[in-house]
Amino acid sequence: MRILVINPNSDPEMTRVIQRVAMDFAGDRFEVTCLPTPGAPTFIDSYLDEMQSAQGMLSLMREHESRVDGVVIACMDDPNLDAMKEAATKPVVGIAEAAMKVASMIGHRFSILSTSRTSVANHEVLARKYHVQELLASVRYPALHEMELNQEKQYLNAGRAALDEDLAEVLVLGCAGFAEIAGRLQTQLGVPVLDGVACGLMMAEGMVRLKIATSKVGRYLPRQ
Amino acid sequence: MRILVINPNSDPEMTRVIQRVAMDFAGDRFEVTCLPTPGAPTFIDSYLDEMQSAQGMLSLMREHESRVDGVVIACMDDPNLDAMKEAATKPVVGIAEAAMKVASMIGHRFSILSTSRTSVANHEVLARKYHVQELLASVRYPALHEMELNQEKQYLNAGRAALDEDLAEVLVLGCAGFAEIAGRLQTQLGVPVLDGVACGLMMAEGMVRLKIATSKVGRYLPRQ
Amino acid sequence: MRILVINPNSDPEMTRVIQRVAMDFAGDRFEVTCLPTPGAPTFIDSYLDEMQSAQGMLSLMREHESRVDGVVIACMDDPNLDAMKEAATKPVVGIAEAAMKVASMIGHRFSILSTSRTSVANHEVLARKYHVQELLASVRYPALHEMELNQEKQYLNAGRAALDEDLAEVLVLGCAGFAEIAGRLQTQLGVPVLDGVACGLMMAEGMVRLKIATSKVGRYLPRQ
Amino acid sequence: MRILVINPNSDPEMTRVIQRVAMDFAGDRFEVTCLPTPGAPTFIDSYLDEMQSAQGMLSLMREHESRVDGVVIACMDDPNLDAMKEAATKPVVGIAEAAMKVASMIGHRFSILSTSRTSVANHEVLARKYHVQELLASVRYPALHEMELNQEKQYLNAGRAALDEDLAEVLVLGCAGFAEIAGRLQTQLGVPVLDGVACGLMMAEGMVRLKIATSKVGRYLPRQ
Amino acid sequence: MRILVINPNSDPEMTRVIQRVAMDFAGDRFEVTCLPTPGAPTFIDSYLDEMQSAQGMLSLMREHESRVDGVVIACMDDPNLDAMKEAATKPVVGIAEAAMKVASMIGHRFSILSTSRTSVANHEVLARKYHVQELLASVRYPALHEMELNQEKQYLNAGRAALDEDLAEVLVLGCAGFAEIAGRLQTQLGVPVLDGVACGLMMAEGMVRLKIATSKVGRYLPRQ
Amino acid sequence: MRILVINPNSDPEMTRVIQRVAMDFAGDRFEVTCLPTPGAPTFIDSYLDEMQSAQGMLSLMREHESRVDGVVIACMDDPNLDAMKEAATKPVVGIAEAAMKVASMIGHRFSILSTSRTSVANHEVLARKYHVQELLASVRYPALHEMELNQEKQYLNAGRAALDEDLAEVLVLGCAGFAEIAGRLQTQLGVPVLDGVACGLMMAEGMVRLKIATSKVGRYLPRQ
Repeated sequence: MRILVINPNSDPEMTRVIQRVAMDFAGDRFEVTCLPTPGAPTFIDSYLDEMQSAQGMLSLMREHESRVDGVVIACMDDPNLDAMKEAATKPVVGIAEAAMKVASMIGHRFSILSTSRTSVANHEVLARKYHVQELLASVRYPALHEMELNQEKQYLNAGRAALDEDLAEVLVLGCAGFAEIAGRLQTQLGVPVLDGVACGLMMAEGMVRLKIATSKVGRYLPRQ
Repeated sequence: MRILVINPNSDPEMTRVIQRVAMDFAGDRFEVTCLPTPGAPTFIDSYLDEMQSAQGMLSLMREHESRVDGVVIACMDDPNLDAMKEAATKPVVGIAEAAMKVASMIGHRFSILSTSRTSVANHEVLARKYHVQELLASVRYPALHEMELNQEKQYLNAGRAALDEDLAEVLVLGCAGFAEIAGRLQTQLGVPVLDGVACGLMMAEGMVRLKIATSKVGRYLPRQ
Repeated sequence: MRILVINPNSDPEMTRVIQRVAMDFAGDRFEVTCLPTPGAPTFIDSYLDEMQSAQGMLSLMREHESRVDGVVIACMDDPNLDAMKEAATKPVVGIAEAAMKVASMIGHRFSILSTSRTSVANHEVLARKYHVQELLASVRYPALHEMELNQEKQYLNAGRAALDEDLAEVLVLGCAGFAEIAGRLQTQLGVPVLDGVACGLMMAEGMVRLKIATSKVGRYLPRQ
Repeated sequence: MRILVINPNSDPEMTRVIQRVAMDFAGDRFEVTCLPTPGAPTFIDSYLDEMQSAQGMLSLMREHESRVDGVVIACMDDPNLDAMKEAATKPVVGIAEAAMKVASMIGHRFSILSTSRTSVANHEVLARKYHVQELLASVRYPALHEMELNQEKQYLNAGRAALDEDLAEVLVLGCAGFAEIAGRLQTQLGVPVLDGVACGLMMAEGMVRLKIATSKVGRYLPRQ
Repeated sequence: MRILVINPNSDPEMTRVIQRVAMDFAGDRFEVTCLPTPGAPTFIDSYLDEMQSAQGMLSLMREHESRVDGVVIACMDDPNLDAMKEAATKPVVGIAEAAMKVASMIGHRFSILSTSRTSVANHEVLARKYHVQELLASVRYPALHEMELNQEKQYLNAGRAALDEDLAEVLVLGCAGFAEIAGRLQTQLGVPVLDGVACGLMMAEGMVRLKIATSKVGRYLPRQ
Repeated sequence: MRILVINPNSDPEMTRVIQRVAMDFAGDRFEVTCLPTPGAPTFIDSYLDEMQSAQGMLSLMREHESRVDGVVIACMDDPNLDAMKEAATKPVVGIAEAAMKVASMIGHRFSILSTSRTSVANHEVLARKYHVQELLASVRYPALHEMELNQEKQYLNAGRAALDEDLAEVLVLGCAGFAEIAGRLQTQLGVPVLDGVACGLMMAEGMVRLKIATSKVGRYLPRQ
C-alpha cells in the first residue's frame, strides 16, 4: 500500500516533520510520501491561503494518484478537501476531519490546541462542518505572556487549561507541524492527545483496506 | 454607487441574463456590471468547477474592487465566497446566502428549484452552512419525463410540487440563469419566488448604505 | 416608495431618534415615517409590554398600510411580529430579525449589546427563533459599576468585552434607541456595528423592490 | 386545589367539552373551571386570532388568579402563553407544551393530528419552540376526500397513517375540542393518544403540588 | 393508586430519604414504596455502576409491577431507564427526565447542582438525550475549598453561582439524596428548585391518571 | 497486535460469520478472535436483550483484556458500549459508531439497511447519540412482500430504494450478520457499502497504533 500525504503549504521543514510522523505511523505496513505543494504559501492561515494552494494540490494529486492507494491532506484547515475528494478515485482524508472523528469516539468533549486567536473561528467552522460542534469544548491557544516559553510548554499549559476550565477530555493538536509533541503531551496530561497526521493516515489506511472511496452519486461528482 | 457582479462561470449568455436582471433591480440607484470569469468553466456544477473559477474570480475582483462599492457573486453554489469576503475590503455577497436569508424572513419553509438531482446535496450543504437547514423544505428539480417541456413549465411544476407535497411557503430559484422567470412563477404560484441575483444585489446595496463590510478580526483575516 | 416605521412603544423621544436614523438611511430613495404606538408602554421590556402594544400596533398598521409599500417594526424585541406579518399584504420586517440576518453574513459570530441583564434571555429566545443561535457569541450589557459613564462609553466597553472575551466579530445594538451611536462604535472598535433600524429599513426597501411580501399559504393566513 | 382553565376562544360549546374533560381528569382531587375568553374569536386559527384573544385572556386570569392555584391555557396553539406566564404568580401551563413534553417521555417520535393543512407550520413552530422538533414525526390532518366521514373516523385514519407511514409511536390531538375522542383512538390504534387538556391539567396539578411557578429572574419579568 | 419507586442503589439511608420525600408528595392521593436495589452498588456514579444495578432493578420491577400502577426510577443518572420502560406495561419515569422536562416549562435555562466534577459530562449526556441540552445553563458542583461547609450551604453557593454567572433561571438537584433541601434552597434563592423524586412522582401519577404508558410499536418492544 | 471481537449475542453461526469477516480484514497485521457472549440472547433486538448481554460481555472482556490490544463490540446496536469503554483500559469500539463515522467521511448522507421496521427507531437513536443524525438519510428494511427473496436480493432492493428515493450516497449494513454481502452490494450499487465489523476493526486497529484509549477524566470513570 502507498499513501500520498499532501502538505498544502510549501514549507520544506514542516514537510519533513510530517514525513517523519507519517513514516512512524506507517511502519512497514505501507509506504508513505509527504510532498509540499508547489506554488502554495509557506503557511496556511486564511481562506486566501487555501485558495492559493488549490491548483498545486490538485496537480500534485493528479500526478501521483495512479501510483498510490489513498491520499491524506495534512493541514488542520482541511483546505480544498471537498474538491480533492471529488477529483480522486482513491480515498482522500483531511487530517482535521480524521482527528475530530477519532476524538468523538474516545471521550465526551475535545479541545483543539491551536496556534493563535485568529484560528479559533476556522476550527469552529470545521467542527460544525463535520457535525461535531457540540463536542468541541474549546479552542485554546498559547497565552500572549507565554510566548517566551518553548512550544511544547506553551501547548502543555493550553492543554491543561482546556482540561481544567473547559472540561475537555481529549485534546487535538491544531496544526500538522505539532505532531511530534503529541506523545509527550499525552503522557504529561493523562488524556488522549491526537495528532491529525496520524489520525488521517489511520483513516486512509483503513479506507484502503475497506476498499472504499468517496461516493460519487450526488455531492461529489465523478472525476471529469 | 457601483456594484460589481461576478459571474463565476465564463458563459457570455448567462452573463447577459444576469446583467439584465441586475440592471432591472439597480434602476437608477446604482450602476452595476456583470462580468464573466476568465478561465472558469462555462457552468459551475461541482467542487472542481468552483476551484477552477477561483483565481479568475479573485483577479476580477482585485482588478475592479477599487472602483466599486460592493461585490455580488452570482452563482447559486456561492463558489469561493469565504475567500472573496476575506480578500475584499468592500462588502461581498453570495446570491445563495442572500436568497436563503430573504426566504427565511417571509415564510415558514422554502424550497429550492434546482437544475438536477446531483445538485441537491450541494444546496443542502449550503443551507446548513448558512444555518437555515431547518427551513429548507426540499430541493426540487424537473422530472425526467418532463424534459421536453420548456424550462418555465418545468420549474412551474417543480414549484407546485414543493408547495403541495413539501409544504414550502417560499421558492428560491436554484441557478442564476433562471432569474427572468421569477416574476412569472410568482404570479402563477401565488407565493414569493426569489431570484438570487436580485436578492444578492439587495443585500450588497444595503450593506453599502449601512457602511459595513466583512469583519476582519477572526474568521476572515485582513487582506494581505 | 414609502416605508412606515412603527415604534412599538409610545415614547416620543425614542420615536424622534428612530425617525432621524430612518431618514438618514432613506435619503432621497424613499419616504419614511416613524410613529409611536398609541396605548403602548413607554418602553418595551417584557412579554406583557408586548401584549399591551399589540392592538395599537395593529391599528396603526391598518390605518396606514394602504398608503405605504412596507412596514418596519422598530423594537429589538420584535414584538407581535408574526401577527403583523400576517395582517399585512405589504412586507413587514422586524429590526431584530433584520439585524441578526445581516450580522450572519459579515462575520463568524455576533454579540448583542443590550440594556440590562434581564433582557439577555429574550435576545437569546429571538436568536433561536431566527435560527442564528449558534452565531450568537454573547449578549453583553453595561456593568453595574459603570452606570455613571455616558451611554456611549458603556456600550463601547461592553462591545470591547464582547470582542475580546467572547470572540464576537460583529456587534448588534440591542435597542432601537441606540441607533445614533452605531457609527462611532464601529469606528472605535474596528468591527461592523449594526443598528437594527437601518437593517430593518434595508430589508424592507429591498423586499419592496423585489416585489415580495410574507407568504400566505401556511404559517401566516391571508388577511381576514 | 383549584385550577382555572382558560379557553382562549369564545365558543361556549368548546368550553363545555373542555370543562367535561377537565372535570373528568380532576376527579375529586381539585376543582376546575373552564371559562371562554370574552372578546376572543370563536376559533383560534392564526396569529391575529391569538392577538385578538390576548386582552380577554389576561383580564380573565387577573380576575380569577387570586382564587386559584394554577392556570391552564386550553388551545393547542398555546396563544399568549409567555405573557400569561409572566403575568401570573401561580403556575401557568399551555396544553401544547404539556402534551409535547408528555409525548417525549413515552415513545420515540410523536405525530400531531390536526385540523387542517394550514395549521401544520404553526404546530412545527411550537414543537421547535419547546425543543422537541426532532421528536415530531409529522403533523397529520384529515384528507380532503374524507371530509364526509365523522370526525372520529377521520382522525383514526390520520392517526393510522402517522403510525404506518411516519413511524410515529405516540399521537397528540391537535385541538382542545378533540379531547373526548382520545380514549377511543388509543384503544383502536394501540398507542398512547394524548389530549392536551388532560396533559395540561396533569402538569398544572403537579406544579401546584411541587410548589413551583414560573421563574421571574430573567426571561419572565415579575408581575407589574 | 400505588407507585413503586426504585432506588437503583442499595443504600438504605438514601432509600429512607427518598421514601420520606415520596410520601410527602403522595399525600393521601396514592401509596408509594421506595425500595433499594439488591446487588446494586451503594452509590451510582458510573456506567459500570449502572450496569451492576440492572438485573436487580429489573427483578424488583418484575416482582412488584402487577401490584402497582406506575414506576419511578429514583437516581439522577436515570440508569437502565430505556430497558425498564421496555420491560414494563405500566408507565415508568426517570427522575432526571422528569425534572428536566418540568424545568423546561418554568424558565429559560436551568442548572443542575451536582455532586462532583466527574458527573458533569453524564448530566450533559442526559440533557442531550432528552433534547434539552440548549436549556442547560450549566452543571455546578461544590467548590473544593468549600467541602468543610454543610451540604446545604455548599449547594446554596453553587446555586447562587449558577444564577449569577450562568444566568440559570431554574435549578435542578443533581442527586435523589438531596431532595430534602429543595424547599429551603427555593426559599433562599428565589427561583424554582426541583427535586427529581417529586418531579418523577408527579409525572408517574399524571401518566397513571391519563391511562398511558410507554408506546410499544417501535423503539420499545413489547414485553417478552 | 491482538483484537478481541465480542459478539454480544450467543449465536455461534453469527459468531463464525463475524470471525471470518474479521480475519479477512485483519490479514496478517493482527490476530483477531470473535467470541459469543455467554448468557446472552441469540439475537439482540431490544433494550432488554442488551441488558441481558451486559454481564456476559463484561466478563468476557475482563477475562481477555490483558491479552489483547483493543476490543470491538460487534452488534449494530452498540449494546453496553459506554460501560465497556469505561471498564477497559484498552480502546473499545462499537461497530455502529465506527460505521457511522466512516460513512460521514465519504459522502453526503448515508442510509442504514436494517432487519426490520422495529429497529428503525433504535438506529435513529444511535445516529443522534453519535451526532450524525443530520447525515442519516433513512433506515431501510426489506419490504414485507419481498420476504421470499434471498437476503442479498432483499438488501439490494432496500439499498437501491435508499439511493433513489432518499438520496443516500453511502449505505451501512444494519447487522453484524450481513457482513459478507457488503462487497457484492457495493459492486452492484456503485456506492460504498459499509460493514460495521470491518469498520470497527479499522478503528480499533488504528487506535492501538495511535496509542490511545478512552479518556478517563470525566464521562468515563477509571476502572474500579
